Amino acid sequence: MSSAAPQAPTTKARRRRSDGERTRQAILGAAASLATVDGLEGLSIGNLAAATGISKSGLYAHFGSKQELQLATVEEAERVLDEEVVQPALAAPRGREQLLAVCDAFLSYVGRRVFPGGCFFAATSLEMGARPGPVKDRLVAIQSDFTGLLRSFAVAAIEQHELPDDTDPDQLAFELHAILLGADTKFVLYDDATFLDLARRVVRERLGYGD
Amino acid sequence: MSSAAPQAPTTKARRRRSDGERTRQAILGAAASLATVDGLEGLSIGNLAAATGISKSGLYAHFGSKQELQLATVEEAERVLDEEVVQPALAAPRGREQLLAVCDAFLSYVGRRVFPGGCFFAATSLEMGARPGPVKDRLVAIQSDFTGLLRSFAVAAIEQHELPDDTDPDQLAFELHAILLGADTKFVLYDDATFLDLARRVVRERLGYGD
Repeated sequence: MSSAAPQAPTTKARRRRSDGERTRQAILGAAASLATVDGLEGLSIGNLAAATGISKSGLYAHFGSKQELQLATVEEAERVLDEEVVQPALAAPRGREQLLAVCDAFLSYVGRRVFPGGCFFAATSLEMGARPGPVKDRLVAIQSDFTGLLRSFAVAAIEQHELPDDTDPDQLAFELHAILLGADTKFVLYDDATFLDLARRVVRERLGYGD
Repeated sequence: MSSAAPQAPTTKARRRRSDGERTRQAILGAAASLATVDGLEGLSIGNLAAATGISKSGLYAHFGSKQELQLATVEEAERVLDEEVVQPALAAPRGREQLLAVCDAFLSYVGRRVFPGGCFFAATSLEMGARPGPVKDRLVAIQSDFTGLLRSFAVAAIEQHELPDDTDPDQLAFELHAILLGADTKFVLYDDATFLDLARRVVRERLGYGD
């Protein structure tokens, strides 16, 4: 398409859109990182300008309001979670292997400090929990999707007799999610990867690996 | 003592100190609640004045700096955790019963919304995790004490053969703490006590009750 007969205005408009997209992407990456340290409420055009080197007026052009910035930041964090955690799990063999893969991918994403303050959603969920509104609603929806994913893997594992028949998939999804949250909290607080290894061991035991 | 021969200045001084203590206590109670919604960084003399009806200058007389206020708030929250969760557990029979009691007391403290934003320490640990300093150090020490308590109960339970001999007390303490954190997070986010019941079930299963 780029080698087609030149149509200057369209091409320029496209490039501008694409440059704008790249800038927006860079801003949101910085915003998601900042939010895991300062919170979503701590996000401001001012500290984002300091973090990105983009002028405040430039940032205002991208995001009309604080809430718009928060929602776009959550969307960017969801994209990262999908890329880092969900997709690797979906690529694993159906069932118990997917449960193991999703937990390992999550612990790896935390341990590699993809976000400086640990998992974006762990960091922001408790912050926004007591603040009703569209941002909290998005966080709730993303948490529900993630729990639903864990549950679907658990259901497949039970169907394939990789887990005891009487396993409650809701309970197992809750347990595994809690182990991941607990590992994230301790890793962030103690800056110690031992807790991630401990979580890997708990997950393997819970899923019956090595029995 | 109060019925002893009147020594006006001392008695007055005492009453003043005691009134001051009560006011300080009321301020810190409000501060701990606020911190579970706005974060420890969100605590300010301004919003504390709004929450307590005490003038800003009155508050400045009690707390010289924001850090002093944060540290005093953490201390008050630790007192509440001790009263609500630690003491009921210590009153239970040694061993596995104490593990059950500490988990049940924690889930009750969350469910009764002793703090509006769920467990104070869950709410503030991720917030302060990426902010080195004396406040984070206190939060780390309190988390370590709590984990140590869970571990000591686990060790006793293993000694008393209430849990399998090959149970790793560090791993069990981590698992139970994670379940409590996970339940707190979901309760706050969804405002749904089902997650507390789910956690109670998980804890009982993990400790072998009903086997």
